[in-house]
Amino acid sequence: MFIGAQVSLYPMTSDFVDVITTGLTALTPYKSDLRIETDDMSTLMVGPPEPLFGAIRDLFAAAAKRPEHVTMHVTLSRGCPGEPDDATCRCEVLERAQGESLADRKQLAAQAVGSAPTAGVEIDVQFSLYVMGSDAHMDEIYGCIDFLRESGTFFKTKNFCTRLRGDAGAVFETLRQAFLRFGPAEGHVTIDLTASANSPSLR
Amino acid sequence: MFIGAQVSLYPMTSDFVDVITTGLTALTPYKSDLRIETDDMSTLMVGPPEPLFGAIRDLFAAAAKRPEHVTMHVTLSRGCPGEPDDATCRCEVLERAQGESLADRKQLAAQAVGSAPTAGVEIDVQFSLYVMGSDAHMDEIYGCIDFLRESGTFFKTKNFCTRLRGDAGAVFETLRQAFLRFGPAEGHVTIDLTASANSPSLR
Repeated sequence: MFIGAQVSLYPMTSDFVDVITTGLTALTPYKSDLRIETDDMSTLMVGPPEPLFGAIRDLFAAAAKRPEHVTMHVTLSRGCPGEPDDATCRCEVLERAQGESLADRKQLAAQAVGSAPTAGVEIDVQFSLYVMGSDAHMDEIYGCIDFLRESGTFFKTKNFCTRLRGDAGAVFETLRQAFLRFGPAEGHVTIDLTASANSPSLR
Repeated sequence: MFIGAQVSLYPMTSDFVDVITTGLTALTPYKSDLRIETDDMSTLMVGPPEPLFGAIRDLFAAAAKRPEHVTMHVTLSRGCPGEPDDATCRCEVLERAQGESLADRKQLAAQAVGSAPTAGVEIDVQFSLYVMGSDAHMDEIYGCIDFLRESGTFFKTKNFCTRLRGDAGAVFETLRQAFLRFGPAEGHVTIDLTASANSPSLR
């Protein structure tokens, strides 16, 4: 299993380099658990979902606590057949999920969001979950949408994606649960995610 | 068939509202062919691939011709089973593709990129193509990667995505061909796309 993300932070300010640098310092505690490599377009993070979503959450929360409008785009992937197996990405939640029904997984996901830590910053997210290589992929998508609607972070559906809104802690736990608990445990699942904070459109 | 995109433009400047407004004026010629709706996170565009990719290209090219660093994120989708059928999205290229071999589709895609108009601005792109609901999805992905490598816009592969680089005209034609010619003609295919121009990392 290979699990990771390509992450890009977009501050809507002429001081964008300073905001990005602030965000990247939030990654320091994760450097022992994740492989992190930055190029001119995005930061690659490879590792298990626990530190992976924690790092993405803390990166965005650090930037969002500043006053400037900031957005982030993340491409998440697990189980891509084109990527090499990586022992550092091992995840017990995924392994256990193999024997769990869709109903059980919805309940476990809701419990995890309910006990998520508070990050102290309100954010907006829209995302799409993709399940590849399975004729039953829409069953898993609809199961995931049921969970999202009850998650406490659900805002609305849009064409091609779902909007979440709330504290960054609950929102990123919702995303982690969507990524981990839906779609085959050994399958190829991806998320296309956009986050936004301090948008002048909402003032 | 329902075809469309959620598009977000991210100018890395305190004048971001002005850059976004500049970009949105480039959409005017497309308003008769596409349904276009903007909210606080993205602009929905619904319609056939010819004007759809033209509108996304012209939006980004207009912003990229200014001096500021600007990025764009696009979530593209065709054939999503959760979306209603929409007659305005009808596409002859997709209909013809049903009877074409993978080898023929690679050749037709390369010809289309070769005759793409020049937009006059150099851009960087990274994107992921997802093919849902088919056990053979990796055959289509690898066929698409073959086409990309010969397209003239290929830059490099990265984990989870492919980098393109070149004139916006050729780059967006490459993306349109990847979206249209690979994956089942009646299937659910999506693209997670990020574009970048004027990045200080490349100076």
